[in-house]
Amino acid sequence: MEIHQIILGLFLILISARFFAELFAHIGIPPVLGEVFAGIVIGPSLLNLVQPNEIIKILAEIGIILLLFEVGMETDLDKLRREGIKSVLLALAGVVLPFVLGFAVGYYIFSLPLLVSLFIGGTLTATSIGITVRVLKDLKAEKSFLAQIVIGAAVLDDIIGVILLVILADFAFSGRVDIFHAVKATALVLVFLVAAPLLASLLARLIYIYDAKYRRLPGFIPTVVISLILLFAYIAHIFGAPEIVGAFAAGVALSRSFFVPFAAFLKREEKERFFRDLEPQMKPLIYLFTPIFFVSVGLAMNLREIDYSSPLFWGLTAILFLVAFFGKAAGAYLIRDLSHIERLIVGIAMVPRGEVGLIFAELGRNAKIFANDIYSALVFVVILTTLLPPFLLKVLYKRYVQNSEGG
Amino acid sequence: MEIHQIILGLFLILISARFFAELFAHIGIPPVLGEVFAGIVIGPSLLNLVQPNEIIKILAEIGIILLLFEVGMETDLDKLRREGIKSVLLALAGVVLPFVLGFAVGYYIFSLPLLVSLFIGGTLTATSIGITVRVLKDLKAEKSFLAQIVIGAAVLDDIIGVILLVILADFAFSGRVDIFHAVKATALVLVFLVAAPLLASLLARLIYIYDAKYRRLPGFIPTVVISLILLFAYIAHIFGAPEIVGAFAAGVALSRSFFVPFAAFLKREEKERFFRDLEPQMKPLIYLFTPIFFVSVGLAMNLREIDYSSPLFWGLTAILFLVAFFGKAAGAYLIRDLSHIERLIVGIAMVPRGEVGLIFAELGRNAKIFANDIYSALVFVVILTTLLPPFLLKVLYKRYVQNSEGG
Repeated sequence: MEIHQIILGLFLILISARFFAELFAHIGIPPVLGEVFAGIVIGPSLLNLVQPNEIIKILAEIGIILLLFEVGMETDLDKLRREGIKSVLLALAGVVLPFVLGFAVGYYIFSLPLLVSLFIGGTLTATSIGITVRVLKDLKAEKSFLAQIVIGAAVLDDIIGVILLVILADFAFSGRVDIFHAVKATALVLVFLVAAPLLASLLARLIYIYDAKYRRLPGFIPTVVISLILLFAYIAHIFGAPEIVGAFAAGVALSRSFFVPFAAFLKREEKERFFRDLEPQMKPLIYLFTPIFFVSVGLAMNLREIDYSSPLFWGLTAILFLVAFFGKAAGAYLIRDLSHIERLIVGIAMVPRGEVGLIFAELGRNAKIFANDIYSALVFVVILTTLLPPFLLKVLYKRYVQNSEGG
Repeated sequence: MEIHQIILGLFLILISARFFAELFAHIGIPPVLGEVFAGIVIGPSLLNLVQPNEIIKILAEIGIILLLFEVGMETDLDKLRREGIKSVLLALAGVVLPFVLGFAVGYYIFSLPLLVSLFIGGTLTATSIGITVRVLKDLKAEKSFLAQIVIGAAVLDDIIGVILLVILADFAFSGRVDIFHAVKATALVLVFLVAAPLLASLLARLIYIYDAKYRRLPGFIPTVVISLILLFAYIAHIFGAPEIVGAFAAGVALSRSFFVPFAAFLKREEKERFFRDLEPQMKPLIYLFTPIFFVSVGLAMNLREIDYSSPLFWGLTAILFLVAFFGKAAGAYLIRDLSHIERLIVGIAMVPRGEVGLIFAELGRNAKIFANDIYSALVFVVILTTLLPPFLLKVLYKRYVQNSEGG
């Protein structure tokens, strides 16, 4: 990979993302889909000008972490705790239902082998928090209590997804479930879950104090925040069992669980001041890096590899899409105290699978678990779950706001 | 180069740059030297944790272009034109004197071969605009008319340096000066010099109009500006005779000559509005990327490779430093209408050689033109020219401001 090709690739990503996002915004389509579409246009699906590579992956990862960091800054930990049980229910149902149903479809209806069916279930499991958050932000709904429920659930969901990935990857490569490895991975993730908020609290406080009292030069906060993101990505790699293919995904999920509660432990008035200073400094970075993530989702969706003439492809796609959609959305009906339209919004917000599903599908294909038509069906299902909810959410959320104002 | 090593490298660069810049600011040393020092500490000279690589080079390049872009936004084209003849004189004297004197020292005093002596002259030629601009900015002097003279001269100086590099590189590899190649390179650079401001004007105007009238989504400007920087780096590569080693340096200089006058062609009131919107959005990116450039200068300075026991090393260093310092600063004495202290400031501001000198020295070593002691002496001279002027400028500029206020 030559340096000038990387430069050209980045240019095409940034400019096409901006072009299609603006275009889609003008014609009333959620702009985030413009960015995913940009990836489909310049990527292997259509023009094949840019292929996914390691550099794009790092920058995309910085983008999604920055987006979640921003959401985390706006997240009220009290509110998150108050809605916590709702998030846990939503996350658990959203993992169990698609996994079990996806497995059952493969194993019982299509008579596929055990491992293939397990991987189908795995691919349908994890919500892609990025798409959901961006749509909520574009609707200016990211601070609503519905959004809090969804964000909490999606972060948990990610973490359960990583543990599942570790277990299934073991099973795929060694033919059995390595209990020691599975326990180790789970323990590691749990240690992170406890340690991350403490570390986040400590660092946010140190940064806050230094910035307020001792800092001499401008531009302190963006640099330190980006540095921490890089450091955490590195630590996650070191801890994250680099021998498994899912290390990257593990790093992703762990970094996310670190940055979402980043400033949650400051005192209220400190937090407000910190955020007021932080926001205008972080926004340009968020605007720059976030689209790289969504374009990279589009780059990873290779529509050319799909065999559109295979009946298995169409059959699997149709049934798995129903499973992926309703299996995920159904979790919202376990939550009490929500109106019908609120359940619809929460349920549909959890549907996008995006990059997490694609990582799983890719893993399955590389391990020769998925034949081409099964892989294609899964990619197509992931694409549909990513593209459909933004439209539905836009319509539902508008109606919801009108109802609330009318009532 | 693995992805996690790149991530760790970037983390170390950002955090060490910030640490030493803050530390130096607290003890009264120009902060930019803290960033260069960070590169010396984490790089091959000391801890050897980070080595220069292609990714760092791209990011560093984005950093320096962003810094110049900011300066360009603040540059008044009328003022630049009014001081233009001063800049041209300064640039020409600053190229001719160090080149001729450096050559003479090598050829006549140390009896070195013709090619070696020519490369010594070449290494001492080009001013590193980055250090100068950062010091002026840290002193809040970047809008003064003295700064305008220096910036104009340093940009010109860069361009002449590139042409010299093309000619000398040809001579080094083929043993003769390829007239066709030299003319082609010169013509190309001249085409750029004419076309760049026109293109810059057109693009700045389009961006301004779209942003003011049609834009639907936030974050337009930073993304477009970064995109343009990437595009221009790519175009410069395509045009820039990639067969020569200096292509990278060529791209650098050409991109710079494009972005410095970027907004100069907007109407005054448009420009003010544009800049008012632009500044807060670009600052965080500038703060993030610029230190990467200065750290990379430090990374490129390998103090371990210097043979401190060689008499030739010390002799060459002493004489070449005098040539590099006074040869460059002397140009200021050709300019009329300046007081003594103004001449000192302008002259010394031109002294830093930084990355341009290091590229030349590296080229000479890779082509086996420089023996180790000569290479070491040149690297040491470049380091001295980079480290000394910030201190001198700080003292001189303070006295100058006091005098002006007192008078």
